[in-house]
Amino acid sequence: MTVSPLAPASFPELPVIDGVRFASAAAGVRYKGRTDVMLAELVAGSTVAGVFTRSATRSACVLDCQAKNGLPQTGPAAILVNSGNSNAFTGRGGVEAVNALTAAVGKTLGIDPARVFTSSTGVIGEPLPYDRIVAKLEDLKSDLRPDMIEAAAKAIMTTDTFPKGSTKSVVVNGQTVKIAGMAKGSGMIAPDMATMLVYIFTDAAIDHGPLQALLSKITDRTFNCITVDSDTSTSDTLIMGATGASGVNVEGDAGFAQALESVMLDLALQVVRDGEGATKFVEIQVTGAKSDADAKRVGLSVANSPLVKTAIAGQDANWGRIVAAVGKSGAEADRDRLSIRFGNITVAENGWRAPNYSEEEASAYMKNQELVIGVDLGIGSGKSTVWTCDLTHGYIDINADYRS
Amino acid sequence: MTVSPLAPASFPELPVIDGVRFASAAAGVRYKGRTDVMLAELVAGSTVAGVFTRSATRSACVLDCQAKNGLPQTGPAAILVNSGNSNAFTGRGGVEAVNALTAAVGKTLGIDPARVFTSSTGVIGEPLPYDRIVAKLEDLKSDLRPDMIEAAAKAIMTTDTFPKGSTKSVVVNGQTVKIAGMAKGSGMIAPDMATMLVYIFTDAAIDHGPLQALLSKITDRTFNCITVDSDTSTSDTLIMGATGASGVNVEGDAGFAQALESVMLDLALQVVRDGEGATKFVEIQVTGAKSDADAKRVGLSVANSPLVKTAIAGQDANWGRIVAAVGKSGAEADRDRLSIRFGNITVAENGWRAPNYSEEEASAYMKNQELVIGVDLGIGSGKSTVWTCDLTHGYIDINADYRS
Repeated sequence: MTVSPLAPASFPELPVIDGVRFASAAAGVRYKGRTDVMLAELVAGSTVAGVFTRSATRSACVLDCQAKNGLPQTGPAAILVNSGNSNAFTGRGGVEAVNALTAAVGKTLGIDPARVFTSSTGVIGEPLPYDRIVAKLEDLKSDLRPDMIEAAAKAIMTTDTFPKGSTKSVVVNGQTVKIAGMAKGSGMIAPDMATMLVYIFTDAAIDHGPLQALLSKITDRTFNCITVDSDTSTSDTLIMGATGASGVNVEGDAGFAQALESVMLDLALQVVRDGEGATKFVEIQVTGAKSDADAKRVGLSVANSPLVKTAIAGQDANWGRIVAAVGKSGAEADRDRLSIRFGNITVAENGWRAPNYSEEEASAYMKNQELVIGVDLGIGSGKSTVWTCDLTHGYIDINADYRS
Repeated sequence: MTVSPLAPASFPELPVIDGVRFASAAAGVRYKGRTDVMLAELVAGSTVAGVFTRSATRSACVLDCQAKNGLPQTGPAAILVNSGNSNAFTGRGGVEAVNALTAAVGKTLGIDPARVFTSSTGVIGEPLPYDRIVAKLEDLKSDLRPDMIEAAAKAIMTTDTFPKGSTKSVVVNGQTVKIAGMAKGSGMIAPDMATMLVYIFTDAAIDHGPLQALLSKITDRTFNCITVDSDTSTSDTLIMGATGASGVNVEGDAGFAQALESVMLDLALQVVRDGEGATKFVEIQVTGAKSDADAKRVGLSVANSPLVKTAIAGQDANWGRIVAAVGKSGAEADRDRLSIRFGNITVAENGWRAPNYSEEEASAYMKNQELVIGVDLGIGSGKSTVWTCDLTHGYIDINADYRS
């Protein structure tokens, strides 16, 4: 598969996070000739927190993770992820698969199964051939190494055209703590209170409660502000592990929160940059709304509009479709106070086309690969930023054939 | 433009509705070489009712129609519609255009401007060259004839590939009353409490109040149950005129309501059959929901899912995407009670693939041009039917270029 034209130049140099080791393997779950399982092991004393999809048809492994999230264990922990099969809508067999996998990982690594978290991503409704994964656990165990996160990020890809990683260091009380994360996601991207598959690690120390609160808050303005195709997955999962190996407690530290948000936003935007068939990266800045929630509603309505997304693909400065998307959003809006801009070009204001609007200028702007669309509602101080990509023939090619 | 493969074989034979006359003309609003304005005149004593888009950015003519709907006039009435320009988001100039048009029609036909309703459909944000329409009013007046409804239906088309008409007669108290209607619509179709442009006429007698109540109720289970691309228009309008020329009062008559619903459903489904780029017509039958509203939510979530729509385009029996669309709908659902069928083939039940599911059988079914998808939630008696089409390369072709 061709790498997305919006991809970063290369995978970032991710630091070792003390207390975490990674391994990956080719178990043949569905794909041939590539890795499809990754294992991460965290040392005793690590805290683990997560946010998960709110889909009513969420997968067996998501339900299992949710049940375990916040249990007061302090022993070592593990995260096992496979691609190729989502183990979603697989009935009792799906639950059995999760139980078998968490038990086998627990036994192999000497970890309480209540501290083993699993994720599965890929086709929905097919039984997960978990025995193929179990057969690889001994190999995975002996391959565990602190510097294998990039290989792990590759093993969890499905329609992704590049692996996604991000890192940030921050000094807290004179000592450096490190954050490193990975993500996968390309289609079925409209996270709802959660995200695609994302795993973030830090050597900072932080209790489960404050870590969970931080994750939920930041998710709401990073992963929950992206959309590729308005379709919410049955498997969305973000899990973060804090090993405490640095000995630095970061609870309540603003610098750490900022660094974590930077990593989460970077990963979220990489998911958009790998949107199925995407040729344009679009940031939608909504201001002047009645509330932040209304601003987000408008941003997502514009970002999910097939007519806006196809106009962007066609490099057409069709701002009328943005007006229509604002109108249908359900947010409070006043047609005559609405203004719209492309980059720095004001195209519409006061309920009509801007007086000195130039179609040539706007059309030239639309040829850029990275676009900013500004929507000011002019009725309040609520604001939100949402990120998306265009809707192209490439999306149809991928999804009219690929059984994901 | 090629006619949609889902189009009816021909335009139906529409009867003359006593008390209504039609004319159409080529005013050159935007298109060349085709008609783009239609005028309908209703005799004194006619009642007129309508339902309109709830978009917060609705057009000047929609706001004008809403203000006039239900005013207690009983004189003659007129409906003027142009294609090529929607007069939406055109600021004060848009209001002036509507006022100029309704005044000119009123003067030409000798009708109170408060009884002149206008609609405009086409590009958003361009000033409407209403003088070109005014210049055609005398011609339109002299061309008015009772049997010109098909020509009128053609004049209001935009990206439509065929004109849409429907008719039904019904015997009330031993006397026959007739209903005839027309519609346009192909893209930006996700009516919200309203519809595309639809005009329905009857020679029955019925007061404004009961006519309005009937229209609103039926709209909710016809036009408000269709979607092509989840984008709600700024111009959605349905106007119905009852001339009373038959002398038959139909207030409270169940047969008349049924006949009207049949016409409205027929027109709504023709809009879906002309969905931009459509190659498949899809009926989604949702049953077993907690409430009818929840069932409709599930139906629209499935119908609007790009992943479901592209799977249908690819003739892929990818029911996992239907599970995901049910899950994201926000409706109450229990994964383990959900069942899904394609036509009469049960593909999933009890939270998993049906025991005797055959991929070959399901794939063969997906090759049909008309598909039925059944979703039973298994938790209540709420039900709803929603209609949509697939998402194809044709949709991208039309919308990445066409400035609608």
